[in-house]
This record gives sequence, C-alpha cells and structure tokens, in this order.
Amino acid sequence: MKNYTHTAHTRFLLNEVHGLSDLFALPRFQHLTTEQCWMMVEAAKQWADRDLAPFFQAMDATPATYNGNGGVKTHPHLRTCIKNGADQGWIGAAAREEHGGMQLPMMIFNAAHALFNSANNSAVGYLELTAGAAALINSFGTRAQHEKFVPKMYAGEWQGTMALTEPQAGSSLTDITTAAHPIGNGFYHIRGQKIFISGGQHEGCDNFVHLTLARIEGAPAGVKGISLFIIPKFWPEDDGTLTYNDVFCAGDFQKMGQRAYVTTHLVFGDKGHCRGWLVGEPNKGLAYMFQMMNEARISVGMGALAVAMAAYQNALQYAHERPQGRLASEKDPLKPPTLIIHHPDVKRMLVTQRAIVEGGLSLAMECNRQFDLSHAASGAAQQEAWLLLEILTPILKAYGSEQANRSAALAIQTYGGYGFTMDFPAQQYYRDLKISTLYEGTTGIQSLDLLGRKVVMEKGKALHLLLQRMRETSAAAGRYQPLQAYATQLETEITRIGSVLTHLSQHAAAGDIDRYLADATVFMEMTSLAVIAWQWLKQGCVAFEHLQKGTGEQPAAFYEEIVHTMKFFYRYELPHAAAHAATLLNEEYLTNPVQTEYLRVS
Amino acid sequence: MKNYTHTAHTRFLLNEVHGLSDLFALPRFQHLTTEQCWMMVEAAKQWADRDLAPFFQAMDATPATYNGNGGVKTHPHLRTCIKNGADQGWIGAAAREEHGGMQLPMMIFNAAHALFNSANNSAVGYLELTAGAAALINSFGTRAQHEKFVPKMYAGEWQGTMALTEPQAGSSLTDITTAAHPIGNGFYHIRGQKIFISGGQHEGCDNFVHLTLARIEGAPAGVKGISLFIIPKFWPEDDGTLTYNDVFCAGDFQKMGQRAYVTTHLVFGDKGHCRGWLVGEPNKGLAYMFQMMNEARISVGMGALAVAMAAYQNALQYAHERPQGRLASEKDPLKPPTLIIHHPDVKRMLVTQRAIVEGGLSLAMECNRQFDLSHAASGAAQQEAWLLLEILTPILKAYGSEQANRSAALAIQTYGGYGFTMDFPAQQYYRDLKISTLYEGTTGIQSLDLLGRKVVMEKGKALHLLLQRMRETSAAAGRYQPLQAYATQLETEITRIGSVLTHLSQHAAAGDIDRYLADATVFMEMTSLAVIAWQWLKQGCVAFEHLQKGTGEQPAAFYEEIVHTMKFFYRYELPHAAAHAATLLNEEYLTNPVQTEYLRVS
Repeated sequence: MKNYTHTAHTRFLLNEVHGLSDLFALPRFQHLTTEQCWMMVEAAKQWADRDLAPFFQAMDATPATYNGNGGVKTHPHLRTCIKNGADQGWIGAAAREEHGGMQLPMMIFNAAHALFNSANNSAVGYLELTAGAAALINSFGTRAQHEKFVPKMYAGEWQGTMALTEPQAGSSLTDITTAAHPIGNGFYHIRGQKIFISGGQHEGCDNFVHLTLARIEGAPAGVKGISLFIIPKFWPEDDGTLTYNDVFCAGDFQKMGQRAYVTTHLVFGDKGHCRGWLVGEPNKGLAYMFQMMNEARISVGMGALAVAMAAYQNALQYAHERPQGRLASEKDPLKPPTLIIHHPDVKRMLVTQRAIVEGGLSLAMECNRQFDLSHAASGAAQQEAWLLLEILTPILKAYGSEQANRSAALAIQTYGGYGFTMDFPAQQYYRDLKISTLYEGTTGIQSLDLLGRKVVMEKGKALHLLLQRMRETSAAAGRYQPLQAYATQLETEITRIGSVLTHLSQHAAAGDIDRYLADATVFMEMTSLAVIAWQWLKQGCVAFEHLQKGTGEQPAAFYEEIVHTMKFFYRYELPHAAAHAATLLNEEYLTNPVQTEYLRVS
Repeated sequence: MKNYTHTAHTRFLLNEVHGLSDLFALPRFQHLTTEQCWMMVEAAKQWADRDLAPFFQAMDATPATYNGNGGVKTHPHLRTCIKNGADQGWIGAAAREEHGGMQLPMMIFNAAHALFNSANNSAVGYLELTAGAAALINSFGTRAQHEKFVPKMYAGEWQGTMALTEPQAGSSLTDITTAAHPIGNGFYHIRGQKIFISGGQHEGCDNFVHLTLARIEGAPAGVKGISLFIIPKFWPEDDGTLTYNDVFCAGDFQKMGQRAYVTTHLVFGDKGHCRGWLVGEPNKGLAYMFQMMNEARISVGMGALAVAMAAYQNALQYAHERPQGRLASEKDPLKPPTLIIHHPDVKRMLVTQRAIVEGGLSLAMECNRQFDLSHAASGAAQQEAWLLLEILTPILKAYGSEQANRSAALAIQTYGGYGFTMDFPAQQYYRDLKISTLYEGTTGIQSLDLLGRKVVMEKGKALHLLLQRMRETSAAAGRYQPLQAYATQLETEITRIGSVLTHLSQHAAAGDIDRYLADATVFMEMTSLAVIAWQWLKQGCVAFEHLQKGTGEQPAAFYEEIVHTMKFFYRYELPHAAAHAATLLNEEYLTNPVQTEYLRVS
C-alpha cells in the first residue's frame, strides 16, 4: 500500500492558491508563520505514517464489535493512536489558546486531517468527533463546563460524540423525543435512546462525553423545542472521581466500511439516574448543534476526498508498476507488454480521479479559508466569509462525498480484477467511502439546504457573492489568451445557474415549494460542477502565471500538470452541467404529484 | 429482505415488447408454447425463493475460504443448491435436446437466471459457469468429449470453469504461457498457473472441468497460438473411476463482494502428470472461448441489472414502510411524519433505479432474442440477429454493470444511514455488484470492443443495422402525438452517434488508431444512453398502444408506469449523451501523447 502524500498539491493550495499567509495579519493568527504551519503539517505526516497508515487494513480486518454487555471491542492500537494524536495537538489545535488550543487556522488543521483521512479514515474519526464536541462546549458552554470536560477531551482520554439521531426520527430532528426533566442548577434527568452514535463506546478512551439533543418537558414542538446537553457516561465529580451516569451502550451497527469506527446504540437513563447538563439556553440546541454539524460537513466532504486521494495514489502507483497488454497500434505480440499507465483508458481513469480529488480539495481549502476568516476577521470581510462558507459547505459535502465514491470506483477499475480483492486497499477505500454520502445529512439533504436555504438566504446575498467571486476568477484568467476559452466556459456556467434559478423560482413564487425543491439534487450536481470548474480555473490561473513568470515554489512540471488537469476537467466533467440544466429546465414535471401507485412494490 | 419479483415487467418484455412467441415458429423452438415457457419461469421463481434467496445473506457472512491444503470451505447449502438447480434444468435447459438440454430459448433461460441473480448472485454463479463451459464442449468438442463430461455437468455433479487469466497476463490473453505438450490422440501434458478462476474448487461438486487456454509447444506467438483444452481435476476413466489429474488449488482470493462465489488460483501439472484434452483444432482456442465469453458478457450485464433490481425493490419497499420527516411545504411539526416515498428526492432516486434497471433489462432481453435468432433462425434473419448481437453485447455488459452499480448506490441512499449497515441487504448488493464492471473484460475493454471492432465490423454493417432498428422504433413512436417529442429525441441521438463517429474516424483514417480509441469509454457512455433510450421508447410505444386500445396483459396502471418511466429516462438520463458528445467532439487532445511525468506518483 502506498503511503499517500499529497503535500505538493496541499502546499500549492495553501501557499499559492488560497493565501494562507493572509491569515497571519489577523490578531487570532499573528503568533504563527508559514514555516511553523508547515512544520505542523510535516509532523502530522510523520504521525500518520507511524500511528495511522500501518493499521488501516488491520483495523478493517478486526472490526469494532459489541461485546453483548455494554462494551465494544476495538483494535488494541486505537488507544495509542488516540493518545498520540491528542498529544500532537490533533484534537484541540484549532481551538483558541484560552480553551487550551494552539489557535491554528482550520486551513492547517484540516490540511493535517486530510492526511490522516488518507492514512486511516476510521481511526481519525474518533479524534475529529472529539474535536467537534469540544468546540461546541467551548463556543456555547460555561467556563465550568469547559473545565470539567474539555481538557480531558483534548488529552484524548475522553471521547466526545454527537448524539442526535433517534430510531423513529432519522434525519428528522423535529421528531426527537429524548426527554429532559429539570432538577435545578442547569441539570436535568435524561431519558431516551440514540442510534448511529459514532464512537459512543470503545476501548480507546476512559469516558464518553455525549453532546446530546433532547426536549425539556413542556418545550415547544418541533425543532424550536430542542435543547443541547452534555451527558457523560461517567460523571466527573468535583473530587475527580467518576460516577456511572446511566448511559448504556445497548449495541452496535456492523457496517460495510469504516469497520474500525464503531457505531453505537445508546440508552440514556434506563435506570432513572442519567444526568445531563444544559448547554447555553433552553430550546436553542439545534442552532448550537449546527456549529458542530457544519464543521462536520466540511470534515466529511474533505475527508472523503482525502480517502479518494489515497485510492488514486495507490492506483497511480499500481499503473506505473503493472505491465499488461499493448497499445492498440502495437500489433506485434512478441513486443513486451506495456505498463498499464500507457493505456489511454487507464490514463483517462487516473486523470478523472485527479480532477475530482484536486478540484474538490481546492474547494475544501476555500471553505477552510472562509471558515478562518469568518471566525478571525472582522467587519465586511468576516460577513462575506460567513456567507461564502454557508453556501459552499453543502456543495463541498455533496460533491466531495459523491465524487469521492465515483473516484474510488475508478481506482478499483484501474487495478482490474485485483481491485475487487482484499489483497489491495482499493476496495477498502471504496467500502469506507460509501458512508460519506450519508453522514451529517445525505446528499438529498445537502441539496435541499443549498436550494432551499443557502441560495435564498439574506435575499440571495450568499449566492450573489459566490457568483461574483467566480466572475473575478474568470476575469483574472481571461487576461491570458490560452485560458480565455476556459474563462468563457466558466462565465457560461455562471449564467446557466442564473437561468435555471429564474426558471425554478416560478414555482417558489407560485407558492409551490415542493416543486421548487423537487430536483434540488440535480441543481446541486449542476452547481457543484460549476463551482469545481471555478476552483480549477483558480488553480490553473495561478499555475499559468507561475509558468509565465518562472516563479512559484513548485517545479514547472507541477504547474503544467495543474493546467493540464484543469483542461481535462473542462473537457470531460464540466459538459455535464449543461445536461443537468436540460433536466431542470424541462417543463414536464414528472416526480409530482405523488404517485405512490406508480412506485408500488410489484 | 424483500423477495424481489419482477415477473410483471419480465412478462411485458417477453410477451409484448420482444416477441417471445415469434420464436416458436422456428424449428428449434417449435416444441414449446408461451404457456410452457412461463411455467418454467414460475418454477424458477419458486426454486429461487426456496434454495437461493434464504441463503443470500448467510453465504456472504460465511465466505468461501481456502483451507490451506487444496480445498475450499463453502457454505453447506451450496451442494443442495447446485444439485436442485441442475435437477430443475437451470444448467442445461438451453442446450439442444441432442446435448441433453430442453432447447429452451435464451430469452426464457435468462429470464429465469435474472430471477436467480436477484435472489443470490453468488450461488447462481456456479450454475452459470457450468452451463457456459458445457455449451463450449457441445459446440466445439467431439461427441466423446461431450459424453465424458457434459452429462455430469448438467447433473450439477461436476463444476465447469473457464480458465483464462494468468498472473502476468491479466486481460491480455496474448501473453498467456500455460504450456501443452502433445502425448498423442488429442491429449497433452499441461503445465501452468491460472488465477481468478471462479468456482475452481469447492465443496458443492465432486469434480471440476476446467476449460483452459494454453499454448501448444511451437505454436505461433500471440492470440493465434492459443488452444482450448478440457482439463478435469479428476480424470474420468472409461470404467467410471476418477484419477487425480494434478490440478491443484493453491489458494483463493478474498473479495469485497460475491464472497460465497469462490475465486481460486489453480496450478496445472506441478507434479508433471496433468492431462488436457484438446477441443477442436489447435490454435483456435481463443475463437472458441469467445463463444463462452460472449454468453458470459450477456450473463454478467443482465445479472448485474437483476441484482440492481433486487436492490431497487428492497429500497422501494423500505420507502413505503419508513415514516420520516415532512414535505417542505408542511410546516407543522405536530403533523405525523410522512412515509419517505413521498419525499421528491426519494422518488427521484427510486425512479432513477427503475429507469436504469428496466431499461437495461429490456436491452438484455433484446440481446437474448438476437441470441436465439442467431442460433435458430436462418438466412438473412440469422445474419442480422448475429450482427445485432455482436454490437449490443459490449453495450449490455458495460451499461448493465456500470449503471447497476450506480443504481445500487441509490438504493443504499434510499435507506439513509441504515443502507450502510449489515442489517439491510442494500450494502451487499452494492458490494457484490462491484465485480460486474471487471468480469469478462472491464468496461474499458468492452468500449474498445465496441468502437474498435463492432462499429467497424463488416464495413459498419452491425452499426448500420442497429441505427436502422432504432429509427424504426422512432418512426413507430412518432405516429402517436404524445410520443413525438421522444421519437425526435431518439432521432437526435442517432444523428449524434453518426457525427461523433465521423469526427473520430479522422484519426483512424490518418492511421492514429490509439487516438481513435482513446475515449472509447466516453463513446460507450454516449452510445449506451442512446441505446437504452431506444429500449425505453420501444417499451413506451407498446405500453402507449395498449393504453390507447385497452389491450395488453397488464392493467392500465402498469402501462402508465412504463410510459412515465420512459419520460423520466428521457428527462433525467438521456441529456448526458450530449455532454459525452461534447467531450468527444472537443478538438483538444488531452490524454496523449503519453505523459507519464504528468501522471507520476508524487
């Protein structure tokens, strides 16, 4: 198995495309330099090579498994892995110093986490979950809550989780029923069940801190009556002892992938003495949780692309080593076989993977930048960054996960039959990745978020800003004659988004919101192609400038490859945006009115 | 798990779209009636429900596993399953009566096998492999060879296999090195190794009959020097005893799917006494093997669609039973949740699955019909059927496998997070299906076959005939005003195929065959969309006629669904053909010249 390294492209993205060094002018990041940041990433790579990658296949072969009595058997290396990751700062490094963090920009924190996901996406899930849960306590909890839980979480001793889903409700948080009964001083008795709780119980940590959504007695119906609670498995008493808090792991879900990353079923308060600690104000739980959810969506989208990057790099190496067959033009069977990298179809599959992965990772880095600016900048810059982050997050999540799956399928295909066997990691990347289109809101939910909320938010301001940024890139590229055709194509896509929205908006204006949203996923597919085309033109433009001027950190061949992959994306991927638009502009409305008869089980 | 039944659509395809009863006018099938054929299919369904479906998940959970010493541990039910399947005729029923078969049309034989694939694709693989191997002996072997092997194979006692792939050669049969040394009377000593041999060793049969490609000493290099041999594991002596024939199973490949269908590594003649029996003439082995290969390609394409049908029907049932969330237009959280079938995105995913599966299965049935005509008709009808079968086979294999994978991904997505868990069969269909794009020639190889061989064969006659048949369907549909728009769209696609070929042919004419073929897979994607659009219009036209006239075997609602799904395919799927054409017509040539530097491992 190749040890995946995308440092050159990551450097290019951070230093040359997305302006990492801009951040150091902001008070929050002024303690840092580019060099320090890259030392962190290098250290991250070394840690991934030591504690993550070597256990990728072994952890899959011995999946996390419920022991029948509240416990979950996990791989013996998991504890070391979590502890060492924590010690290196990879749980808490992005937090503020006052919260025990290093105030690392998300651009760097997530660049490191992309490496971890490439190395072992199941193992690093535990760290990311704790990071998100701790960030939630830092943002909305009290100092007392922070002190009680977060240091142990950042030390990798306690696992954080997010406990949202209930069996009867699924993604519909409106319908959660876990109940909280006040017992004074911000404490509540909790009773309820949660499913699909990643990291809810395992042998790698001593305690589990569940950031849990529940309903306080008498709260309004729906999402307006949901509150957020900290519910540890063991309650940390003031004297430092731990008391069992009636949080019982009742089972796990065995899965087709991410088999080392346990998914649990938790029962709160079955014995009547589970205590939860309210975070922030009552009935604002969902708004708080959305902080974690949005960070998790970036994480899942970027993480999926990082897994696909590992699949791609392994496939690429295989293609460089495996001789088989001859080019169609070579008729002499006595000539030695060629390496498969020379077969046009293999090249097409490899460059497709690269176009997806490096295009998607550029969008991920764009999101990380906007995240950093929206947290650390001020005034209009902060506001714009927040708007861009809001509209780009569902696109990254949907494109990153869906296309990472497609990319990993092409990685398997690159190996031929070997790709289907357990002898190569391709199939594991493919199995692991399938969850990414489901985690933190399915692709359908991301698409409803984009078309139903983000496109229309603040009277369309986020969309307007995004299209303006895309136009700026197009204008910048248009200054170079060899890039003009691509700049024009991007303009066409910008216009197309507008035309499609004008068309769809008729339905919203007529009050038919269901029809307006019916093809939200197709709109997502179209829009995400345009957005990735923007990211490719942005990369291509920087690369082209460096080639023109003889500047840049990377060798000329690197920049030529970037320009080439950009052209490939515009030739092979982008044309499908027009196809999606043709679907969306089609007047015939096929999916409604509800035709259950039509869809009956035959 | 739902017990998948696609009988209504299968009946529609056979009886109303693809003219099953036409076959009974041919001498080969004149002993049959429509009723008899359907009795066979009903019996097939009952057998699938009894011996296949109940073991689908259990067989996956206890994969076939090498025992370290030549044997492979398989599920205890496998032997019963093979034996009962054989007794019902599902290995030999399509063979001629003189070969011990029932002269069943492939339309019926494969309609039954589609049900088997829906029920348990791993288990039925064993039967299909034996059927293909026996057919090869029947076609090209001697009567003595037939008598020695085929009755035992049709009885399900001996397993047939196809032994082509060698470790160093992969799909490049030019490079196989397994050696045959003549010892007289058509017998040879064999020495060599084969990998990826499905069914090569297991506990369900007593003997294994390997149809093996090898090179006779002194044979010409390349594919012109390959011969076909029958190599049993145990040699059946004239007195009926079995002598070990030095065929050793040296290991297996563990796989991400089809885990009950063993994939072996075989060593022939390690002890120097492995005997093979030449089939037909020396050096014609590849041509013979292509009979089996072509039948297997139909089988894999159709089988993949049948697996996707099972995934779809399970997802459909789940969507009818699972309440979750509310429509976007419903703002009252106190209203009960809706069944997920009512969410537009869930409907879109389900109808997409249906459009793929039923469109693909119509193409499969078209291929089966042409198979039957090409074997049983005479004169021009026979010749035309053969040409159509030649050009449609790679399209069925590529579209069926690639789109079945996409369809199964949408089935998982329909379940949300549950789809990723082992609690539901969706993930198993998805895992099982991944091999279908690799078996019997990858999608890339099918695409080279289409553009490099089938499009140009007999001076383009096969393509010409296909486009003519497509035009006939368009003309028939164009007579009905409500179908005219679809007829016109199909005409557009027919024209598009011509334009793209004119464009690509420049390179072939200039002698640049590598460039002509470089984007063969994109050409396949474009062409297969047009071909499936043809099949949908064919189905839609028949359904529309029945609705107009109040005729047909099925209720009106069924025909309305067919017309609706046709429209869906034209709206949501077909627009991507234009996108593929845009890629193919793009003048910029990106994948060549060979840029290994560009694709280097970073």
